[in-house]
Amino acid sequence: MQSDEDQIRQLVATWHTASKAGRVDTVLGLMTDDVVFLVPGRAPMRKEEFASALRAQVGESAPKIDGSSEIKEIQVAADWAFMWTRLSVTVTSPDGAEPIERAGHTLTVLRKINSKWYLARDANLLVPVQESKV
Amino acid sequence: MQSDEDQIRQLVATWHTASKAGRVDTVLGLMTDDVVFLVPGRAPMRKEEFASALRAQVGESAPKIDGSSEIKEIQVAADWAFMWTRLSVTVTSPDGAEPIERAGHTLTVLRKINSKWYLARDANLLVPVQESKV
Repeated sequence: MQSDEDQIRQLVATWHTASKAGRVDTVLGLMTDDVVFLVPGRAPMRKEEFASALRAQVGESAPKIDGSSEIKEIQVAADWAFMWTRLSVTVTSPDGAEPIERAGHTLTVLRKINSKWYLARDANLLVPVQESKV
Repeated sequence: MQSDEDQIRQLVATWHTASKAGRVDTVLGLMTDDVVFLVPGRAPMRKEEFASALRAQVGESAPKIDGSSEIKEIQVAADWAFMWTRLSVTVTSPDGAEPIERAGHTLTVLRKINSKWYLARDANLLVPVQESKV
């Protein structure tokens, strides 16, 4: 029987593996239907828009996305949890251009529904590495 | 007897009023000692650094900071809560320069200690309004 924290760590690992492999439905299955993604300078993104963005990243001509995360903190409170993570993402375009590296922190709210954890709210503070001092 | 949500709304109102009035100790009293502030492109900021930044904003030569927030969501889970807010901040320098407006979203984790709510983790996604599409 995995602890809540272990289950959340497993969710993060699955998220990265599935994202890298282009398994869109797996990634979408890791979030609640009412998920909200917050990024600087953009309107909040809901699940449908996130799904479209993910699908655009699949296929031969799509950029290759690779990420790694260091979980700084997980706090569980009943059926809710929050997680603070430091994240690095490298986007490599198939046209041979220089890869783009982004790094920064995320603050994520997770929700447990029928004994399973899902990503529910996510604030993504990543910036291009050359602008970053994290 | 105020509900948890009412108490959190009151915390936000006090935060804005005290920030505007330069009441540094009041603002610092609204956060936990282990508070973490996350902003894009910077290392996480702890309470001591936040206090220094706040104190630099007090006095005649300091910029005038005015903000307003629209609380989009509050979820309470036992002694933890999270809040999603849309925030606008205007910084007016005393040298007569054009005021700088920043807008965007915040995702905040709050903690209840001895029946009182405190800000514990805060992801601030604000950008200058001319770059913002929120």
